[in-house]
Amino acid sequence: MFIDRLIEKIKEKDNPTVVGLDPRIEFIPVFLRKKYGDIEAVYHYNKIIIDTIKDIVPCIKPQIAFYEALGVKGLEIFKRTVEYGRKNGLIVIADIKRGDIGSTAKAYAKAYLEGGFVEVDAVTINPYLGEDSIVPFTDYCNKDKGVFILAKTSNKSSKDLQDLTTKGKRIYETVGHYIEKWGNEYIGNYGYSSVCSVVGATYPKEMKILRKIMKSAYFLVPGYGAQGGTAKDIIHSFNDDGLGAIINSSRGIIAAHTKEEYKKIYKEEDFHLAIRDAAIKMKNDINNELKRKFN
Amino acid sequence: MFIDRLIEKIKEKDNPTVVGLDPRIEFIPVFLRKKYGDIEAVYHYNKIIIDTIKDIVPCIKPQIAFYEALGVKGLEIFKRTVEYGRKNGLIVIADIKRGDIGSTAKAYAKAYLEGGFVEVDAVTINPYLGEDSIVPFTDYCNKDKGVFILAKTSNKSSKDLQDLTTKGKRIYETVGHYIEKWGNEYIGNYGYSSVCSVVGATYPKEMKILRKIMKSAYFLVPGYGAQGGTAKDIIHSFNDDGLGAIINSSRGIIAAHTKEEYKKIYKEEDFHLAIRDAAIKMKNDINNELKRKFN
Repeated sequence: MFIDRLIEKIKEKDNPTVVGLDPRIEFIPVFLRKKYGDIEAVYHYNKIIIDTIKDIVPCIKPQIAFYEALGVKGLEIFKRTVEYGRKNGLIVIADIKRGDIGSTAKAYAKAYLEGGFVEVDAVTINPYLGEDSIVPFTDYCNKDKGVFILAKTSNKSSKDLQDLTTKGKRIYETVGHYIEKWGNEYIGNYGYSSVCSVVGATYPKEMKILRKIMKSAYFLVPGYGAQGGTAKDIIHSFNDDGLGAIINSSRGIIAAHTKEEYKKIYKEEDFHLAIRDAAIKMKNDINNELKRKFN
Repeated sequence: MFIDRLIEKIKEKDNPTVVGLDPRIEFIPVFLRKKYGDIEAVYHYNKIIIDTIKDIVPCIKPQIAFYEALGVKGLEIFKRTVEYGRKNGLIVIADIKRGDIGSTAKAYAKAYLEGGFVEVDAVTINPYLGEDSIVPFTDYCNKDKGVFILAKTSNKSSKDLQDLTTKGKRIYETVGHYIEKWGNEYIGNYGYSSVCSVVGATYPKEMKILRKIMKSAYFLVPGYGAQGGTAKDIIHSFNDDGLGAIINSSRGIIAAHTKEEYKKIYKEEDFHLAIRDAAIKMKNDINNELKRKFN
C-alpha cells in the first residue's frame, strides 16, 4: 500500500521531507548548461540532485509545470527524471494538480498512475469538481498508488475560495471532511490512508484545524523555506505519533548553491554539496522541532 | 484581442460551437489505425476532423488529458494538432484546467500562452487557489490570449463544493463575481471580456443565474450532447444580443461515425462525412433555438 511504503521510507531515512524538483534554467550551474545545452541540462541537474540526496531523503516531488514550460523535450525529461528517481528507491509524487470530470480524470489517472505517460507513486489533485472527479484517482489506492488532494494551499490568495464559510465551516474544512471520507477505505498498517492531503506551511492555524478534522490523511506540506513556512509552523501537521506529514522544500534545496551562505563554501562544480547540506539542514531542523514537541 | 477574434469567428461561421478533440483510440476508424499505428493515427484522425469542419466551426478544444494518457508521443500530437488547427484558421482553446500557486502558474502560462510547449489561443483554468493563481494567465489577455475559468462544471459531483452556500451565495456564484472582476480590464469591442467562464450545459438553472452575474464573461459550455445537455438547456448561456456563449461537443461530433444513425449511411472510409453531418446538425439545432428565443 502506498501510504505504508511512504511511512516506512520516512522511518528508514528518519526524514519526513520531500525535495521538490521544480527546475528553472537559472538554477542550473553554467558548466552543466554548457555541457548539455539548457534543456537537456535539466535532466542532468535532476540526476545529480537525486544521486546527492537519495541516501537522505525518502521522496521527490517534480512539479510538472516547469517541464511543460520546456515543451515536448521538457516532458520527456520529466519522465526520465521520475524513472531515475524511482529506480534509485525514491518515492515520486507528481505535482500535477489535475482535476476534471470523470471520463477525463480517468485519462489523467491512466497517464500517471498506470504509466500511460509515466508511472509515478502518487499525484496531487484539485477538488473543485467534487467526488466524481476524485474517484478515478483514489481507485488506484488499491493498486499501491497514492493521491494528495488540495485542502488549504500555501499561496496568499488561497483565502479567496478556501476560507469562505459555509454552514459554519470553511471550505478547506469541508474539503478536509471529504478527504477523510474518501480515504476511509484505504487505511494502511499505521492508521493512515493512501488518500492524503495538501496543507500549506504558511497557514499554521488552519493546519491545526485540519489536523483535527483529518485523522487518517497524511499531509504534504508545501511552503516551507522559500515561501516563508518555518519548522515551528509545520509542526502542527504532525500527530503525537510523530507521523502524519511530509514537508516539501523546492527552491530552498535545489537552488541552495545560489545562496550566499553556500557560494562562500562551494565552487560551482560542487553545487551538489550545497544541495546536500541544505537537505541535511532541513531534515535536522524538522527533526529537532519534532523532538522538542513529541519527546 | 482574443474575445473579439472569437466573436468575429463565430459571426463569420454563423456558428457558436466548439468541437472538442478528445480522441480515444476506439473512436478512430480501423483503416487509420492500420495505416499509422494507434498513436500516430490520433494525429491523422484529428487532421481529418479539422479539414472536415474548418469551414463550419470557429473553434476547437483539445482536452490534453487524452494526449497525456498516450505519453510523450501523445503530447507531441497535441502540439501538432494545435498547430494544424491554428494554421487552418481555427481558434484553439486548450482544455488543461491548470491551477497552481503564482510562480507555477507562470510556468503553465508560459507553456501554453507563450509557446513554451505550444502556443494556443486560450486555456481553461481552475479557480480553487484564488486570484494569485489566476493573474499569471489573465496577464496574457493584453497579448491577444483568452482564459476560461471554471465556475459551474457539467459533472454530477460539481455540487460537492460549487453548490455550497456562503454569505447567501453559492460558491459558483462567488466565482462568477470574481471572474467578472478579473475580466473587467480586458473588455473588447463587443462588450465582452477575454476573461471567460466555463458553465456546464447540464445545469440550466445555475446557468441563468450565472448569466446575470457575469455581464461581460463569454461562456464556454461543455456537457452538450453526450453528457445530456440539449439546445433548450444551453440557450440560457446566451444574451439578448445572441452572443455570450460557445457550446462544446466532443464525443457527439468526433465519434458521430460510431453511432447507428450514421453507420447506416456512411462506410468507414467516409467517417468524416458523419462528423461533418453531426457538426452541421449541432450548428442548426443551436441556431434554430437561438432564432426562436431572440428573433
